[in-house]
Amino acid sequence: MHEMQVKVPGDAPREYTITIGADLLSSLWPRIKASFGTHRAFVITDEHVAAAGHLETLLGGRNIPSFVIRPAGEVSKNINTTVAIIEAMEKAYLGRDTVVVALGGGTVGDMAGFAAAIFKRGVPVVQIPTTTLAQADSAVGGKTGVDSSVSKNAFGAFWHPAAVYIDVSTLQTLDERQYRAGLVEAIKHGLIADAEYFELIESQLDAILTREPDILQTMAQHNCRIKGDVVEADPREQNQRRMLNYGHTIGHAVESASDYEMLHGEAIAVGIVAAGLIEAEMGLSEPGRLDRIRGILEKLGVPVNVPDQMDENKLIDILKHDKKAVDSWPKFVLIDQLGRIHQQDGRYAVDVDRKIVEKVLKQLR
Amino acid sequence: MHEMQVKVPGDAPREYTITIGADLLSSLWPRIKASFGTHRAFVITDEHVAAAGHLETLLGGRNIPSFVIRPAGEVSKNINTTVAIIEAMEKAYLGRDTVVVALGGGTVGDMAGFAAAIFKRGVPVVQIPTTTLAQADSAVGGKTGVDSSVSKNAFGAFWHPAAVYIDVSTLQTLDERQYRAGLVEAIKHGLIADAEYFELIESQLDAILTREPDILQTMAQHNCRIKGDVVEADPREQNQRRMLNYGHTIGHAVESASDYEMLHGEAIAVGIVAAGLIEAEMGLSEPGRLDRIRGILEKLGVPVNVPDQMDENKLIDILKHDKKAVDSWPKFVLIDQLGRIHQQDGRYAVDVDRKIVEKVLKQLR
Repeated sequence: MHEMQVKVPGDAPREYTITIGADLLSSLWPRIKASFGTHRAFVITDEHVAAAGHLETLLGGRNIPSFVIRPAGEVSKNINTTVAIIEAMEKAYLGRDTVVVALGGGTVGDMAGFAAAIFKRGVPVVQIPTTTLAQADSAVGGKTGVDSSVSKNAFGAFWHPAAVYIDVSTLQTLDERQYRAGLVEAIKHGLIADAEYFELIESQLDAILTREPDILQTMAQHNCRIKGDVVEADPREQNQRRMLNYGHTIGHAVESASDYEMLHGEAIAVGIVAAGLIEAEMGLSEPGRLDRIRGILEKLGVPVNVPDQMDENKLIDILKHDKKAVDSWPKFVLIDQLGRIHQQDGRYAVDVDRKIVEKVLKQLR
Repeated sequence: MHEMQVKVPGDAPREYTITIGADLLSSLWPRIKASFGTHRAFVITDEHVAAAGHLETLLGGRNIPSFVIRPAGEVSKNINTTVAIIEAMEKAYLGRDTVVVALGGGTVGDMAGFAAAIFKRGVPVVQIPTTTLAQADSAVGGKTGVDSSVSKNAFGAFWHPAAVYIDVSTLQTLDERQYRAGLVEAIKHGLIADAEYFELIESQLDAILTREPDILQTMAQHNCRIKGDVVEADPREQNQRRMLNYGHTIGHAVESASDYEMLHGEAIAVGIVAAGLIEAEMGLSEPGRLDRIRGILEKLGVPVNVPDQMDENKLIDILKHDKKAVDSWPKFVLIDQLGRIHQQDGRYAVDVDRKIVEKVLKQLR
């Protein structure tokens, strides 16, 4: 018997730039071309973003191969759409010298990022998020993926963007329900990492809801700083990055059980209240904290309870399939004060007894 | 406008072990369990390997969730099989604490590696190659992928194994055609990196063809050393690693044009002769070199010409879709002497005029 070692050299660290502003879209293309001079671009967007005119504003009449996801939304976030995207790239004779440009919300970014990650073993992706959700959360951090018939993001890869451009003006065309749901991720950022930011959102909610560009840019900076710091510290989600999953364990289950009729942010709102109730059960609450959280979510108009018709047993079964489950039960992210994660022995995702979860699900009615 | 930088920390370098021996399979499972104590295993194999008894030998009656690819071979190496594998893993309630074990030839290793790369954003894979092709080549190096309806490995990822176990005894059950075709990759290793190894194969070909265990272990060591060194130097195929594609540019096109009725090694044999003819056109040949190469390939019984019924225009069109194509034309890997790659300005993949390729394709009849 003979043994030999093969070294796998590490990837070099790198940096990418997030650019935040208003009315950026019409002047972006020359900047992207300047950054990726030898690459050919392929734009992925969806029918809503295209109908809102953003694709036309970005391309300015240039003839660039594109893929418009139809229908828009979670219903298309599956491997069949990924296959259609990859084959469209091949039919455009694109090679490894391709840069994928993702123009849209969270599902567009997740799908375009995943397609870029697996197209001919990986090409760069530029993220141009156009929703509150994507600008606050999904465009930064490199998580990409699509759903299987069994669970969310069953297929996926870590694939960090080569650049991110946040144009808050694109939010002006977003429908009200999408707009409000996406703000839940910003609230989550305050809860897990920055009490002052939570209070800023609380105090400025009227300006936020009227989509005032200055506060939107301020929020984008806070969101990207918080998320960027966490991702830098733990890009592959070994531990600390799990804090970003606050409200997401039960939130994902609720989203899935609704057959994606609930928007991601709406389901996460329920998940955040669920986390608050679990915290109460485990002695981690502060007086009035959960009421303040419920208050801001109710003002947003997002759900704070599990829908009446949703079966608890179905939720429990989905939790057992959670992609972070170990021995068929997930861990949970909790806070012990506003802006601070509760850690157990240095771990950011902690054990919660199944009985507590079952009790909390009954309270969420 | 506001700009901020996000750092993406590099992945740490790591090492994995290749274990080479005879009659290893029946004692492997406890070693895998010892290395991946907290992980649950999922075995991926194909119907040929299972029918040969290797799955049973590996598992020794243990109850381990498995997926048997049917039918075996390139015809199954597509995204539909990947989807079936991932959903089987989900239905077995597997999470991120999974280790995928790939037991089989090149297509099993490529598919299992790709499934591991994208299952819940990536889990480790142990490669146990059971064919001459996989033991010589594909089990080491981290290239994974599946074909689209348009081209080979259109979907893929770089995903290095966590360990490789090469049991040359598994080659005893391999059918003669597969066995011989896989040896072409070993010949390629000699041609690109080690003239003495080429001469060893040339002089020991009878013992190799009677599957004498000692020479098979010696070859495995040479193959893994050559491939391991190249992959260490350039894991993501920026330049040097391209030398492993010797014979593969035209070889892949021939393989694809045959609708995968030709085995990979058979098509690469044609590609190696094509490279020799291109070298002659470009003044890179040595007296007698191409005759020696043709001689050893003919003794193996693999093709050295493009099949009569294969359309040259189809081959040219496939070359334009090559995943390494830039501006719709691939670069080529050539040697200027036995065991040495021809470089142009330090580049391992070089420009070859389309007219030369067209002329060479006519000569390959």
